[in-house]
Amino acid sequence: MNPHPPASESPGRPICVLGLGLIGGSLVRAAAVAGRAVWAATASETTAEAARADGYDVAADNSEALARADEADALVVLAMPLPAVAGVLARVNELAPRARLTDVVSVKAAMRDLVARHAPDTRYVGGHPMAGTEESGWAAGSATLFAGANWVLGSDDEVDTEVWADVAELAWACGSRVVPAGVEEHDAAVARISHLPHLLAAVLAGVAEGDPHAQGMLGTGPGLGELPLTLAAGSFADGTRVAGTRPELVLAMCEGNRAGLLAAVDDALGRLGAARGALASTGGLAATVNAGYAARQRWHSAQHAPTVRVARDTKPAALRELGRRGEVLLGWSNQTL
Amino acid sequence: MNPHPPASESPGRPICVLGLGLIGGSLVRAAAVAGRAVWAATASETTAEAARADGYDVAADNSEALARADEADALVVLAMPLPAVAGVLARVNELAPRARLTDVVSVKAAMRDLVARHAPDTRYVGGHPMAGTEESGWAAGSATLFAGANWVLGSDDEVDTEVWADVAELAWACGSRVVPAGVEEHDAAVARISHLPHLLAAVLAGVAEGDPHAQGMLGTGPGLGELPLTLAAGSFADGTRVAGTRPELVLAMCEGNRAGLLAAVDDALGRLGAARGALASTGGLAATVNAGYAARQRWHSAQHAPTVRVARDTKPAALRELGRRGEVLLGWSNQTL
Repeated sequence: MNPHPPASESPGRPICVLGLGLIGGSLVRAAAVAGRAVWAATASETTAEAARADGYDVAADNSEALARADEADALVVLAMPLPAVAGVLARVNELAPRARLTDVVSVKAAMRDLVARHAPDTRYVGGHPMAGTEESGWAAGSATLFAGANWVLGSDDEVDTEVWADVAELAWACGSRVVPAGVEEHDAAVARISHLPHLLAAVLAGVAEGDPHAQGMLGTGPGLGELPLTLAAGSFADGTRVAGTRPELVLAMCEGNRAGLLAAVDDALGRLGAARGALASTGGLAATVNAGYAARQRWHSAQHAPTVRVARDTKPAALRELGRRGEVLLGWSNQTL
Repeated sequence: MNPHPPASESPGRPICVLGLGLIGGSLVRAAAVAGRAVWAATASETTAEAARADGYDVAADNSEALARADEADALVVLAMPLPAVAGVLARVNELAPRARLTDVVSVKAAMRDLVARHAPDTRYVGGHPMAGTEESGWAAGSATLFAGANWVLGSDDEVDTEVWADVAELAWACGSRVVPAGVEEHDAAVARISHLPHLLAAVLAGVAEGDPHAQGMLGTGPGLGELPLTLAAGSFADGTRVAGTRPELVLAMCEGNRAGLLAAVDDALGRLGAARGALASTGGLAATVNAGYAARQRWHSAQHAPTVRVARDTKPAALRELGRRGEVLLGWSNQTL
């Protein structure tokens, strides 16, 4: 393995992407546009051929890609679904045991634990680009998928600051803004703004469809039949859109973030239960509805997050504090872009 | 008051619209386009002037409009928010006590009860055109707002079939499809596909924003701060869109449908609680997520509802059964359009 040059001397670190789905495929394209040396591997021979036909450097398999990464001291990016990660980490541990390593998976505590178990000597910094579409697969990818997106970087105290800089520079090269967060903070936040919305969408779709058998048993007449789904439009359509996501993708996200999601679900149950109590007693829902309205207005404001630059030696605790303040990082403060 | 001619001799019954917001204003325009004699009244002098400037017939006040309605045996349409209905009904009872009466309010049991209390001799058939936009007010209205929309008609056994036909013909004249439903059925269905989505959107927005004080007190560190709202995008944006609706409109809908909404909230609490239990015990959310996915797919299918025509003397019970089967009415079976 090569000695590690200081990060400041390697602004264009090579990138090795394992997995060529929507995110991995977009990352390969974006890194290439940014001028990086980039190669990839995929378990699908069909995908490999499609990517090669589009002019990209696809290795024969993960082993070949990882051997090259070890040789070039590249940044290795895991871009496969969570259930496939453990198997790939075993190969990393074998072929590039000290690799600079990151990932694009939407849960971070589970990833950290998997890395600690299967590839404990890698220099791992978790990542999560908040970008995606309804589509999936190599063909759906785009070099501009990450433009303007928030890319969360795991920023706990023990983080490898050199690899943190590698991942931040990759995110910036792809046009993203970096949001530093502790791994547990990330999972708690994403549970509230992504995993819980998926679960509530599924619950709402189920309630609308109802259960004709249960209604019949309650003796309240013949039940509603098709009436609710026939009438469902605007608010139902929006509120259940992500219930149309492929269930295996939703399950991988939600079940992979058990602790974070449990806390978010408990918060939702508490708020919905309070609303239920108010409706049944005083009949008033103003507390719930006004709080939701105010939060939605605050979200609009939060979309104009302050953008900042930071010194390269900023401590993780200070970085996390920036993330909690809602600030996003555009680059190093001593760098002219 | 004029004698009531048989409905079959009055396909173009005059329309009197009380209220010129988004729905009332759109109805005046659509009825005029359909060739009906139509006049209106509004509590807002500014709105009245704007509507007159656009060429519409706006009476000086509800009293004048109702006196004309009584004289012409017009169909009176209540198009104001639920909290304003009782006061207007008192005027109806005074000036057009046997009026043919309908409304466009989104809750039907509460409307039925108000009519029974304040204008008990009117010939009332509840209506609910499932159409709207994020906007409100006269200027936001459009003659095509109801084109292709579902317009629910209260169709309980005791309904006045002659006025039912008046309202159905108005809906068809506006380009809508008629969905017959019992008043309680309507409220139960709309609670599930409209009022619950509004409540869940408010809960979701509140969970995402969190409560910094509560988090601090739990001793789990400094809290998430702005992090969740900064990262919130796709699924959060869709799931909370209707939380941005003016709170007084949401409260009027939800609080006006207390019984229907309570049942829907209890169903949601049960399903979310079951998901919480599964996540905490086995860690598996497949039952919830798969059910939501299937329901969303079934909703897509339900958007292609079978369209039918019915004989004019179809009994209410048979009409309600059509609604439960997910069928929508386009006109009379003995009528060529």
